[in-house]
Amino acid sequence: MYRDQIKSLLAGVKDGNVTIDGALKKLENLPYEDLGFANIDHHRALRKGFPEVIFCEKKTPEQVAAIFKRLSDGNTVLATRASRDVFEVVHASIPDAEYHELARAIVYKRDVVPPRADRSILVCSAGTSDIPVADEAFITASVMGNAVEKLYDVGVAGIHRLLNKTEKLREANVLIVVAGMDGALPAVVGGIVKRPVIAVPTSVGYGASFKGIGPLLTMLNACAPGVVVVNIDNGFGAGYFASLINAEAG
Amino acid sequence: MYRDQIKSLLAGVKDGNVTIDGALKKLENLPYEDLGFANIDHHRALRKGFPEVIFCEKKTPEQVAAIFKRLSDGNTVLATRASRDVFEVVHASIPDAEYHELARAIVYKRDVVPPRADRSILVCSAGTSDIPVADEAFITASVMGNAVEKLYDVGVAGIHRLLNKTEKLREANVLIVVAGMDGALPAVVGGIVKRPVIAVPTSVGYGASFKGIGPLLTMLNACAPGVVVVNIDNGFGAGYFASLINAEAG
Amino acid sequence: MYRDQIKSLLAGVKDGNVTIDGALKKLENLPYEDLGFANIDHHRALRKGFPEVIFCEKKTPEQVAAIFKRLSDGNTVLATRASRDVFEVVHASIPDAEYHELARAIVYKRDVVPPRADRSILVCSAGTSDIPVADEAFITASVMGNAVEKLYDVGVAGIHRLLNKTEKLREANVLIVVAGMDGALPAVVGGIVKRPVIAVPTSVGYGASFKGIGPLLTMLNACAPGVVVVNIDNGFGAGYFASLINAEAG
Amino acid sequence: MYRDQIKSLLAGVKDGNVTIDGALKKLENLPYEDLGFANIDHHRALRKGFPEVIFCEKKTPEQVAAIFKRLSDGNTVLATRASRDVFEVVHASIPDAEYHELARAIVYKRDVVPPRADRSILVCSAGTSDIPVADEAFITASVMGNAVEKLYDVGVAGIHRLLNKTEKLREANVLIVVAGMDGALPAVVGGIVKRPVIAVPTSVGYGASFKGIGPLLTMLNACAPGVVVVNIDNGFGAGYFASLINAEAG
Amino acid sequence: MYRDQIKSLLAGVKDGNVTIDGALKKLENLPYEDLGFANIDHHRALRKGFPEVIFCEKKTPEQVAAIFKRLSDGNTVLATRASRDVFEVVHASIPDAEYHELARAIVYKRDVVPPRADRSILVCSAGTSDIPVADEAFITASVMGNAVEKLYDVGVAGIHRLLNKTEKLREANVLIVVAGMDGALPAVVGGIVKRPVIAVPTSVGYGASFKGIGPLLTMLNACAPGVVVVNIDNGFGAGYFASLINAEAG
Amino acid sequence: MYRDQIKSLLAGVKDGNVTIDGALKKLENLPYEDLGFANIDHHRALRKGFPEVIFCEKKTPEQVAAIFKRLSDGNTVLATRASRDVFEVVHASIPDAEYHELARAIVYKRDVVPPRADRSILVCSAGTSDIPVADEAFITASVMGNAVEKLYDVGVAGIHRLLNKTEKLREANVLIVVAGMDGALPAVVGGIVKRPVIAVPTSVGYGASFKGIGPLLTMLNACAPGVVVVNIDNGFGAGYFASLINAEAG
Amino acid sequence: MYRDQIKSLLAGVKDGNVTIDGALKKLENLPYEDLGFANIDHHRALRKGFPEVIFCEKKTPEQVAAIFKRLSDGNTVLATRASRDVFEVVHASIPDAEYHELARAIVYKRDVVPPRADRSILVCSAGTSDIPVADEAFITASVMGNAVEKLYDVGVAGIHRLLNKTEKLREANVLIVVAGMDGALPAVVGGIVKRPVIAVPTSVGYGASFKGIGPLLTMLNACAPGVVVVNIDNGFGAGYFASLINAEAG
Amino acid sequence: MYRDQIKSLLAGVKDGNVTIDGALKKLENLPYEDLGFANIDHHRALRKGFPEVIFCEKKTPEQVAAIFKRLSDGNTVLATRASRDVFEVVHASIPDAEYHELARAIVYKRDVVPPRADRSILVCSAGTSDIPVADEAFITASVMGNAVEKLYDVGVAGIHRLLNKTEKLREANVLIVVAGMDGALPAVVGGIVKRPVIAVPTSVGYGASFKGIGPLLTMLNACAPGVVVVNIDNGFGAGYFASLINAEAG
Repeated sequence: MYRDQIKSLLAGVKDGNVTIDGALKKLENLPYEDLGFANIDHHRALRKGFPEVIFCEKKTPEQVAAIFKRLSDGNTVLATRASRDVFEVVHASIPDAEYHELARAIVYKRDVVPPRADRSILVCSAGTSDIPVADEAFITASVMGNAVEKLYDVGVAGIHRLLNKTEKLREANVLIVVAGMDGALPAVVGGIVKRPVIAVPTSVGYGASFKGIGPLLTMLNACAPGVVVVNIDNGFGAGYFASLINAEAG
Repeated sequence: MYRDQIKSLLAGVKDGNVTIDGALKKLENLPYEDLGFANIDHHRALRKGFPEVIFCEKKTPEQVAAIFKRLSDGNTVLATRASRDVFEVVHASIPDAEYHELARAIVYKRDVVPPRADRSILVCSAGTSDIPVADEAFITASVMGNAVEKLYDVGVAGIHRLLNKTEKLREANVLIVVAGMDGALPAVVGGIVKRPVIAVPTSVGYGASFKGIGPLLTMLNACAPGVVVVNIDNGFGAGYFASLINAEAG
Repeated sequence: MYRDQIKSLLAGVKDGNVTIDGALKKLENLPYEDLGFANIDHHRALRKGFPEVIFCEKKTPEQVAAIFKRLSDGNTVLATRASRDVFEVVHASIPDAEYHELARAIVYKRDVVPPRADRSILVCSAGTSDIPVADEAFITASVMGNAVEKLYDVGVAGIHRLLNKTEKLREANVLIVVAGMDGALPAVVGGIVKRPVIAVPTSVGYGASFKGIGPLLTMLNACAPGVVVVNIDNGFGAGYFASLINAEAG
Repeated sequence: MYRDQIKSLLAGVKDGNVTIDGALKKLENLPYEDLGFANIDHHRALRKGFPEVIFCEKKTPEQVAAIFKRLSDGNTVLATRASRDVFEVVHASIPDAEYHELARAIVYKRDVVPPRADRSILVCSAGTSDIPVADEAFITASVMGNAVEKLYDVGVAGIHRLLNKTEKLREANVLIVVAGMDGALPAVVGGIVKRPVIAVPTSVGYGASFKGIGPLLTMLNACAPGVVVVNIDNGFGAGYFASLINAEAG
Repeated sequence: MYRDQIKSLLAGVKDGNVTIDGALKKLENLPYEDLGFANIDHHRALRKGFPEVIFCEKKTPEQVAAIFKRLSDGNTVLATRASRDVFEVVHASIPDAEYHELARAIVYKRDVVPPRADRSILVCSAGTSDIPVADEAFITASVMGNAVEKLYDVGVAGIHRLLNKTEKLREANVLIVVAGMDGALPAVVGGIVKRPVIAVPTSVGYGASFKGIGPLLTMLNACAPGVVVVNIDNGFGAGYFASLINAEAG
Repeated sequence: MYRDQIKSLLAGVKDGNVTIDGALKKLENLPYEDLGFANIDHHRALRKGFPEVIFCEKKTPEQVAAIFKRLSDGNTVLATRASRDVFEVVHASIPDAEYHELARAIVYKRDVVPPRADRSILVCSAGTSDIPVADEAFITASVMGNAVEKLYDVGVAGIHRLLNKTEKLREANVLIVVAGMDGALPAVVGGIVKRPVIAVPTSVGYGASFKGIGPLLTMLNACAPGVVVVNIDNGFGAGYFASLINAEAG
Repeated sequence: MYRDQIKSLLAGVKDGNVTIDGALKKLENLPYEDLGFANIDHHRALRKGFPEVIFCEKKTPEQVAAIFKRLSDGNTVLATRASRDVFEVVHASIPDAEYHELARAIVYKRDVVPPRADRSILVCSAGTSDIPVADEAFITASVMGNAVEKLYDVGVAGIHRLLNKTEKLREANVLIVVAGMDGALPAVVGGIVKRPVIAVPTSVGYGASFKGIGPLLTMLNACAPGVVVVNIDNGFGAGYFASLINAEAG
Repeated sequence: MYRDQIKSLLAGVKDGNVTIDGALKKLENLPYEDLGFANIDHHRALRKGFPEVIFCEKKTPEQVAAIFKRLSDGNTVLATRASRDVFEVVHASIPDAEYHELARAIVYKRDVVPPRADRSILVCSAGTSDIPVADEAFITASVMGNAVEKLYDVGVAGIHRLLNKTEKLREANVLIVVAGMDGALPAVVGGIVKRPVIAVPTSVGYGASFKGIGPLLTMLNACAPGVVVVNIDNGFGAGYFASLINAEAG
């Protein structure tokens, strides 16, 4: 039904019966597809600039595979928080889907265009243990068509490791800074660069880090302006937001 | 000493003894100015793209005025969380400084250039009581050279007020969404637009809003991707970050 | 003993020795039944309008089965938070009992009367992961004799999915709105309908949703009037309360 | 503009050009009125069954008076959290407005119809200190056209005071139970009656009541089914919700 | 060494070289016994009126058995939070030790004297799920030589179950009231009796009971005077304290 | 009405128409007195062993004076949390009422009997700043007819001050231990004495004492058995409970 | 009594009847002085190496003055959290006492010896608003006989201000690092120096700093080893501890 | 590369081309070694006085072994939070590495010098269950070259066990005090000794100890000066800090 609606609309555009602006507006209001257990938001790609992303936690592998299949019809698809079990089921029906172990992400790429080299995103992590969250951010931003680079294990306990990379930090158009424990890295990076810094607290740590509350508060209170925060462990959200910044305006 | 250093550096550039890139790099490492009670970070304008902003809370009017005076030497200056008493003292030495009552901000503008019309920022507030925080965001972004618009009192309790403005929401290049109480507005806006949304929780509300914790959590947990969060009541931080997005890349 | 007491009371009513009002009052004060590990509140059906519901968590399958057996003597019975293991034991002694997998509920229906069509209850869920809690509400309200409908996966991240169903929302006599993460859906629904909205926060989410505290606070702070809240994941409580609203008064 | 729109619509109805159902639907989508600092939601009375209620906290007396004036044009109006100072300003322009000291509410009544006697609301308070919140609930429900009664200072520390009133408790169609400190009263009442109980935690108490968190948690965890909760000190929300229950279905 | 010290002391008492008061005082300062991993506080029986109680959690079965063996030398011994595995190891070396499954307690009784009938302790529980904690209190108080009775599953959701037992409640010299979820029972009991009430919050419940914080706060805020609180799930502490009240004064 | 009821009941006792036991039972069920804003629980003295105590916070001086007047008719009366302003109003109508400045308590004594010397209560405070709470406990226990002693400023920072008083600690029949900041004193005292210890956390302290949460948690977690806890700053509750322990059994 | 005891003890030392070690040991167990409202711990200077420090909050000016007077008899005295009003009263009886406005400390110095130059303490503050807490640490350490230096306003938002002072940081024997808001400074300093760092969180900040909880958690979670934490705003505690480190061992 | 750099530097020193001070300074700025997943901070031994310590949690055994191997090249190495599985992998490549079961630490010792006997560290634990954390502190301080002693199971519930060891407490140069539950031990110890006390809260306990928050707050609020706090269960941090105190200054 979804494809048919688009077809007739496009026919109208071709015939001149529908203006381009008018068609665009209609497409933004297309119905979603009801799978019973989920309403697939097919036109999110148009409305938001990227198709719906599948959050796999608390969904069965079969549910994920069904949604993945429907979304992959013509689109790049990203699924996050996916266990290997989930990937196996998806992979069975979509052989081109790839699995990223550490980031726990499934990616299916279509019509890849080379990313804009002048607007790179840099993903920093404070420690080795923060890498899974950092990788989720890295993959999300990559899949959405950005040039992304990594700078891992540069936490403030050995600040010369970070300062040696000042050039690299200043070259990025957007920075994603992932940290657990004291969560101090984004504030320091934010004091060095003039571009936006997206801070991601992780649940890495013990004792009074309280599963990420510690670094979350640190980041919300960052003295350096130019720092915003996403949810604990939400690498996807940071990668997505960084990509919006890089995209062309309205 | 600060001015002399710059002078001789610029002389070097003029003479060809110093390359432009080399001078720029040096300027990024200029010493700060020690007032005894404060180290004024003069080269922040170069390093971060905007001079240091004065956070007035817990500073005496005299301290604010002294820092303001030093910073205003050639720069646009912004002071936030300023009471009228603080403004009176600043105003005595800088007659061109202006006071914004609701936002509690002091502004001194220099060398104003017209903002880029194609990259506007839209500041939304959920309720009338959120306006002081929204205004702080508005003024910050304006002072930093952006075209900024307001859309106030469009909370989700009467969602038609928001939906009637869908066009306006989609035209903005960056959106700042300020809300207290349930803090639900940014998630809804984030589902409508394709541009970045910066959510600002406010301490407005009572009972279980716990001085802003309620909306802060709501916003961190926003289901819609493309939403990031700043500290409670931190209108300044949102305006600053929005301005970074709008600025030219690195 | 319980049945005998009722018998002789009813005989008294039949003979005219006991007035109807008098009998009703006595029945409201009937003793409960002591199983040793539990005091079964047999007259709750009279006092509260529905028999005691069995909360299975932390009870052994044998305890549940014993209580279920005693309550099922002439009544519809509902048991919540029941694992399949518990169901197997109950099923062995009550073959007509049914198990609802997702909602984890055991239902035994007696003397079913068709529900009032003019007072329907609508159960909405924000996401697919909220369905188990939503289903618990659905089954509770159904078992208690209501016409109940579902509207699942209509969260605010794609608000057109909700707005397309405005008619359906406005037709319901009571609405149960289940949401995790940002918990923003009840506030939006509450702004659209003129009937009571019962909000159910779920522990679905990660990071700063803190096992349901996030959406719980959002819902308590909902700007729209006409919204009340039950405990986290308490689908049963919402279904029960909705049914009380629908029932005839005093 | 607002009045004109309604006029021509009603003319259409009179002429038979517009059906009644059609007109009603249109009225539900009427634009709101923009006062600059507030978007007055004029059609809330149609959409929600009662006009917008003014929450006075953090609004200036002048803002409240302006909104009050506009809303009072043909409607009953309620303003909550109003200080006596706010009332004085409102009273100056609306002489018929009344002030309720304890409840801190301003009421302006129009076209009062006698309440339905068969659907009464009972407002209970645990202690003397909870009366301001209880009174806010009382007045809200009264203004919305209900028969409301009070039962104050019946907390569980002297439970015979409550049990002596069992008849009164069972006669009510909806019960609002207000309590601070241990917040135990709603659970006890919920075990006695078969009608819906709306629990309101208050910030009354000291030490570990933590400004209402104590009773809030007690009420969310109430063992008795049939109890829902509103925000701390939110007497208005309870009175509003009780009134929705009493109103005729959609 | 420990036994030798006592022997020579007693010999001194017998010979008249040591007064009884003098001996008693010395015994209160006897050294403890060092097992390497634990300092057994042998004279606690003298100083505190009951020997050291073994808290088994986080100790190995072998550690528990070693401490149990040493303490059982002439004393009644109680071990709490003991799994069946721990019991098996203890039982191997002390065949007369008994295991209480629900309460998870190991008891070894010596020189049992009949309890004072005029000072009974009543242990009440709100629900069936609270029984393990209630049983720990019951066994502790019994082992310490008290007449103890049970009154289980009398929570406030069906308050007639409690009120039917008013006589029983008023006969007890001390009351222990165990409750999870809303934790309202101690406040109600405290309003009925004139003897001390010891409230024990349990971690039973879900959602906003937050592993016992909910009932803990309820109990700390109990409006009825005469109620004190022990730690969450601390049935032992309540039984111990009740026994101190019943014991003869200093 | 209240006095008349008692009169005729006593007449019945005198005439032999009513047994003493029967009269006592009736008196326990006497109605309370309705002042409009308060239900005075006149028979609490019979049911609980001490008349209702007036908690003055959030009551007007006039309300307190009215309740005080009614209660003082034949009884000793205690009012807590009373400002001097409240006292002045009470004093005007009851000249014999006394004010205790630090404890903020009003006391009116009737028919004082000398306290039992063999069951003394000892009130300890950790610091000078805890004295107001300690004094509230002291006065409550004194007014209820106990021999009470003080041991102030013996916190664990200089533990020799406490250990020098071991005799005194061991002589008391009940101990009330008041402490803010680290709240460590009750655990230490509980390890020394064999009688019950009632711990009172105070809101004294700064930083991470969080208005008493710090010492409250310390006390709930006290390693020494024989320690129970009352609400933060609740000196009254501790004095009342200590008095119940000292009173004769049921 | 206190002075007499010392006199006779010293006489014994002089006569050779008491060894020096023996006298020292006795002095460590000298009784304290009872002022009624306070037990002055006179021998703390011997036991702890510095006399008791007066915490003025919640003490009356007269109480402070009385304690100050008694302690000043031969000792240096420090009083913290003292308002100017308190100082005036102290000053009246001890004219040599000095007041430090920002640190709110009263100091009376006796027998000053020059501090050891080779063991300096460096007090750093992140911002201007942290200075009162930093000054309290500075004065405490100075009064206790240390060489102390300041390095203020070197927060991580402009990290070059800190790095320019690396030499200075590495020269100190102990570092006290005071910070509010993000609290990131101690972790960065801890990564640079090899000497102990004492972190002091301050209640400076707004929103999610929650009166110091934010920086407190940051500091507890500091990735760099060699960092310990004192209570929020506890400059005194940090200065005292730094001084202990500098003092000679055992 | 790392070794080569050092070699040529040392050659320069030998030849007299590089001064010793100059070489030392260079060594402090040596680059780190990039293993891909980790930046090994090789010069930490120079900068901080001890090489990087490996925190094993959330690292794979292979990652730990690789880092361990690289660090062990000439240095003593410590790895904390290591399971036996991790140790097996490390042991395979470094046969001299030892495993400490309770403390979960891997130690590889090189060039052991006898510790300074005059500056001993004393590690105290409140209970048997706190031993794993206490052992981590013990091993860390030992590995770093200190004379360390243990005093375990001396909690305040039997304070004579502690007071009997007053001599031992006063002999130590630094004290580490480990406690869960009420966390009261450090405050008591801090009142007895004149040397620095490092308090370590543990997650041992139940109910309201909240995984260590209870003792953490107790310790932050310790009344005795001279007490600082590290993160929950952070035995390593305490041992490390104690060692810094004992080390030679600057």
